[in-house]
Amino acid sequence: MTRRIGICTGGGDAPGLNAVIRAFVKCSLKEYDWEVVGIEDAFNGLLDEPRRLMVLDGPSCQGLLHRGGTILGTTNRGDPFGWPSKGGPVDRSQDLADAVREEGLEGIVCIGGDGSQAIALRLMNERGIPMIGVPKTIDNDLSATDYTFGFLSAVEVARDALDRLHTTAESHDRVMFLEVMGRDTGHIALSAGIAGGADIILVPEIPYDPNRLAAKIQQRKALGRPFTLVVVAEGAYPMGMASVAPKERKAEIAASGGAGPLAMTLLRGLVDAEMRCTVLGHIQRGGSPIAFDRILATRFGVGAARLVAEGRWGQMVRLRDNHIEGVALKEAVARQRSVDVNGELVGTARATGIEFGG
Amino acid sequence: MTRRIGICTGGGDAPGLNAVIRAFVKCSLKEYDWEVVGIEDAFNGLLDEPRRLMVLDGPSCQGLLHRGGTILGTTNRGDPFGWPSKGGPVDRSQDLADAVREEGLEGIVCIGGDGSQAIALRLMNERGIPMIGVPKTIDNDLSATDYTFGFLSAVEVARDALDRLHTTAESHDRVMFLEVMGRDTGHIALSAGIAGGADIILVPEIPYDPNRLAAKIQQRKALGRPFTLVVVAEGAYPMGMASVAPKERKAEIAASGGAGPLAMTLLRGLVDAEMRCTVLGHIQRGGSPIAFDRILATRFGVGAARLVAEGRWGQMVRLRDNHIEGVALKEAVARQRSVDVNGELVGTARATGIEFGG
Amino acid sequence: MTRRIGICTGGGDAPGLNAVIRAFVKCSLKEYDWEVVGIEDAFNGLLDEPRRLMVLDGPSCQGLLHRGGTILGTTNRGDPFGWPSKGGPVDRSQDLADAVREEGLEGIVCIGGDGSQAIALRLMNERGIPMIGVPKTIDNDLSATDYTFGFLSAVEVARDALDRLHTTAESHDRVMFLEVMGRDTGHIALSAGIAGGADIILVPEIPYDPNRLAAKIQQRKALGRPFTLVVVAEGAYPMGMASVAPKERKAEIAASGGAGPLAMTLLRGLVDAEMRCTVLGHIQRGGSPIAFDRILATRFGVGAARLVAEGRWGQMVRLRDNHIEGVALKEAVARQRSVDVNGELVGTARATGIEFGG
Amino acid sequence: MTRRIGICTGGGDAPGLNAVIRAFVKCSLKEYDWEVVGIEDAFNGLLDEPRRLMVLDGPSCQGLLHRGGTILGTTNRGDPFGWPSKGGPVDRSQDLADAVREEGLEGIVCIGGDGSQAIALRLMNERGIPMIGVPKTIDNDLSATDYTFGFLSAVEVARDALDRLHTTAESHDRVMFLEVMGRDTGHIALSAGIAGGADIILVPEIPYDPNRLAAKIQQRKALGRPFTLVVVAEGAYPMGMASVAPKERKAEIAASGGAGPLAMTLLRGLVDAEMRCTVLGHIQRGGSPIAFDRILATRFGVGAARLVAEGRWGQMVRLRDNHIEGVALKEAVARQRSVDVNGELVGTARATGIEFGG
Repeated sequence: MTRRIGICTGGGDAPGLNAVIRAFVKCSLKEYDWEVVGIEDAFNGLLDEPRRLMVLDGPSCQGLLHRGGTILGTTNRGDPFGWPSKGGPVDRSQDLADAVREEGLEGIVCIGGDGSQAIALRLMNERGIPMIGVPKTIDNDLSATDYTFGFLSAVEVARDALDRLHTTAESHDRVMFLEVMGRDTGHIALSAGIAGGADIILVPEIPYDPNRLAAKIQQRKALGRPFTLVVVAEGAYPMGMASVAPKERKAEIAASGGAGPLAMTLLRGLVDAEMRCTVLGHIQRGGSPIAFDRILATRFGVGAARLVAEGRWGQMVRLRDNHIEGVALKEAVARQRSVDVNGELVGTARATGIEFGG
Repeated sequence: MTRRIGICTGGGDAPGLNAVIRAFVKCSLKEYDWEVVGIEDAFNGLLDEPRRLMVLDGPSCQGLLHRGGTILGTTNRGDPFGWPSKGGPVDRSQDLADAVREEGLEGIVCIGGDGSQAIALRLMNERGIPMIGVPKTIDNDLSATDYTFGFLSAVEVARDALDRLHTTAESHDRVMFLEVMGRDTGHIALSAGIAGGADIILVPEIPYDPNRLAAKIQQRKALGRPFTLVVVAEGAYPMGMASVAPKERKAEIAASGGAGPLAMTLLRGLVDAEMRCTVLGHIQRGGSPIAFDRILATRFGVGAARLVAEGRWGQMVRLRDNHIEGVALKEAVARQRSVDVNGELVGTARATGIEFGG
Repeated sequence: MTRRIGICTGGGDAPGLNAVIRAFVKCSLKEYDWEVVGIEDAFNGLLDEPRRLMVLDGPSCQGLLHRGGTILGTTNRGDPFGWPSKGGPVDRSQDLADAVREEGLEGIVCIGGDGSQAIALRLMNERGIPMIGVPKTIDNDLSATDYTFGFLSAVEVARDALDRLHTTAESHDRVMFLEVMGRDTGHIALSAGIAGGADIILVPEIPYDPNRLAAKIQQRKALGRPFTLVVVAEGAYPMGMASVAPKERKAEIAASGGAGPLAMTLLRGLVDAEMRCTVLGHIQRGGSPIAFDRILATRFGVGAARLVAEGRWGQMVRLRDNHIEGVALKEAVARQRSVDVNGELVGTARATGIEFGG
Repeated sequence: MTRRIGICTGGGDAPGLNAVIRAFVKCSLKEYDWEVVGIEDAFNGLLDEPRRLMVLDGPSCQGLLHRGGTILGTTNRGDPFGWPSKGGPVDRSQDLADAVREEGLEGIVCIGGDGSQAIALRLMNERGIPMIGVPKTIDNDLSATDYTFGFLSAVEVARDALDRLHTTAESHDRVMFLEVMGRDTGHIALSAGIAGGADIILVPEIPYDPNRLAAKIQQRKALGRPFTLVVVAEGAYPMGMASVAPKERKAEIAASGGAGPLAMTLLRGLVDAEMRCTVLGHIQRGGSPIAFDRILATRFGVGAARLVAEGRWGQMVRLRDNHIEGVALKEAVARQRSVDVNGELVGTARATGIEFGG
């Protein structure tokens, strides 16, 4: 009897999800002769009535390599341990285990971020559903893997936006702000800022002093460069908010219209220059992945199949020092990787004159 | 004695400004042996002390074809007829005429929008400064010319954003809004929407009924397409605001956070779907122009040189039915071109299922 | 009874074919409630056994707007009037007429170049098959329409290649040749050359004198610009070949390795510089169309549906002075549009210093 | 007295050269207050009369981050140990050492491939010129560093070409060949092939059996996919040539018109399909670097400055396991990294169905 393996995608979308699915299906068919069953909208496809599943064969993978998003659909809603219902969240994890058994699934490959992987780990530990993880976060902030797919595609989108803003900033002698993704960590802001020639980069890991930003802007003006490019991560905040608890801080930032507008407001009294802010938003998540991400996603998809073949349930595929390997899911979801404020990359940025405000 | 011709750029920047300057300089040198003098920041370079002028020769044009922005700088501030001063605006148009004479400029080629061209016309009529106009507006809403450079580059940026949002909308079953430029006219929204596969396009020329938008979203859901892409021009507004005066209407839109957020708010009670809005902002103005705009800008630059050579001061270069020709500046600034709500392009959009809400 | 309309694509592919199909289908369903039947591989799908046809409905149009190529397939082989068979070409045009009748097709919308439209016209005149034409040629050399879709997408690809070659040419002091499409006409070469900052453009309409090219290269060197970018249309040739008959000339060019290598060889004795040639090839035909072409293709698709609705069989849709209209197929296939060697565009190129060699 | 450091670029150009220069200059000025002297055209600028040198300050770095090529110029000619002269190569390495002393250069940062670094090493060992290396090869085949800048930009160009060819191949049922860079190693072909969805990848490390390629093409046809995409590295060759010495083999490949046309010719008798070959050529070398390469180049530039500051002459900067560090130049030039034919990346490609022909 053929083995049946489930696969699903959870959390926000990222360029490369479809490439992982494609590689997993292709490898499963070619090397192992498994049947792959796609579960729609994270685990929801197994809990909804009727179930929403699709057998993934060769033809269903055509054109997936370059296609953004996920053909399986994805969602942030529907934790099986806290399933939304009228009377409040209910635990439907046993329903899920029953569905897995009824569908004859040997286990599930779960492509998702730390939230999804934490759920996968509980489903394995508490309900005995075999799980393999594939890391996914556009923010590249999982300490378990050197890179996640989609991150560099997002950086490329932000870099392109900076290239464009640069000419406008220069022509109009303006201070241009670009707010990019990164609620908790500043990896996109840091990489895009270096790549796009930003003068100032604001990240959550380095609370900023508005006066230092103003000084940088004035210094550029004095050197005959009366324009400035500022990249702001969604979660960046001024030193004055450093003592506020994270949750409240995020609320304060949101109340200011976001981290970009907040920084612009704080600078308004300090510098005499026209200022504009662009919030890049969901454009960073979508579209066709760049080559690096297509390759990484393909390696992850094949790597996940290898883990299944070797029966290494409970592991997550990852990239470590240019090699693909397995790591315990438990370890994988444990720690978020922040921007290393004393690391080489921040040091490189500072050495080329980029100001962090702190 | 060599003839000296001035050139300046006014108003917001647009991809192709540098290509116009380059073509004008190259043609002036090669075919006419004129000296071209760049005036910085619109007319301001002639009014500031010291004057800010730069002789433009061959080497100064290297690399300009593909470069966004304008090497001359540009500004929206500094009308010579209402020059900002402590005691209120003063008329410095005679100072400008004196500066033109002192610098030995035979006339000025002014690349700018309707505001800049209106000033150029007054300078010619009231102060005798010979002027040639080159039309510039990213909104493509000058009735005098079929196309302005920069417009299709902006459409391409918006189209790319729509392609990206499409995959996210589809993966998450969301209604995604993209707000694009177009305070008074909806040309960018209309073209980008058709090119990017939008389901709904909102333009200032067609006040929208939120109920019709909700019906479209529901209809798509019923057809198994539970996501929708909406392009919103900056100046789009609901039917309920149709009787409000334009100026107040713009204030109301701004108070709602912009046309995109306003539309999203109005829909919130009417449809049950996650909704997100991205405001594309200044990214549309910057960056390297696409081939079409580089060619058009080059034709405008050479065309402006031809008008100077023929002594046709007081004219503006334009594209009409694929030909470059001159038209009286007076006529050129007279009329804004709106989206033809009964025209073929809107009809084409409707025929492919696009909803305008009115 | 529902009307059934056939649609097919013939000749080389071009970005935008799928967008035409999509718009025709969407408009047919929404406004007219027709059934649209796609015929595979030009007319072949009606002549092969079994026939290869596909009903095109809403879902089959999903994702087509941005997709290059044609879902119907296309071919240059299979003229119904000279159908390839072992004993030599046979006339199968009556078989085609029979198949059209048997399938209940009221007529056929044929998207194709002058070759395909000439066949369509014969099928209508000699076999009574009602035909509507949609012009398609990447070379933009149909005099009946101002633009064909795909042309500007190809120009953009060639422009991008020139931007890339520019930096290498400059860094290495080289003469870089780029051969682009254009066997009979030089529109792509001319537009891409202007947009990409070429120093020399070679087109079939202007036989070139290698000595003039050498002089241009030397002149640039003398000005401190020891590198040169040359765009060569596939059909460009030196003055020495001007008296050779077109067919033999093409054979001679091919024997020299193509128009680019030929020009490089002719220059080798005349200039002392490293030279390299890149042949862009089929990359120009493929990929996602730019916004302009997506819009034009959509207008053509809707325009074709309008012609069908009005019963204007025997006409071809076209763009004339920014308007979509119908024109008799007979007139449409009559004349090829060459580059106007005394026209404004060539004049613009010359005025900015571009050398044509003649 | 200020320290003066020289910098030069040698060998073929690669996207990111200017970004290295910019980062080195910015870091030198900001953190160390050195004077940086650019040497034109590799070491030639120090040997030519008059010398061709340029002091690189802040303004000379403006706009360099995104600009392809190298502002210093580069060349493959002019080994100081075998300087071309009428009477045959002469050793001018002492002249170079004298020039370095006369110009007051403390040492030279040499950005170049294995050839340039080997020369740098000899100049240091035999003539006492202090040298710091920065690795540069678009082929990514230096074993000393995990990545070289420019490689992934070239892969992106090839990936884009594959995306474009895909639609044409599919529409026309063709076998499309794309020849990419890689005379000795197949890294670009391998990465671009995986990223671009190639069906067959031919690399120098795996001599191919044409019959296996034909079988793959037939197998696809049988599955209803009558088109095939083939990526060919410049140095790929059939098994039949495996016993030929490398130099003669390259001559044979060249005589066949290149590796792509050779493969096409060998397949012609074995498969019944239209075939086309595109040679991507220098387009891969030019243009603006992608974000990854801009960041890596910036890290290399700053890393080189760190090595100079620490007096670690004789070292080369490199990326190892995501960290920037120094490595002895001697070790750095010792070994070329080939594609690991039994490695994970080739295995990933095979697992997704890609055929290597061996």
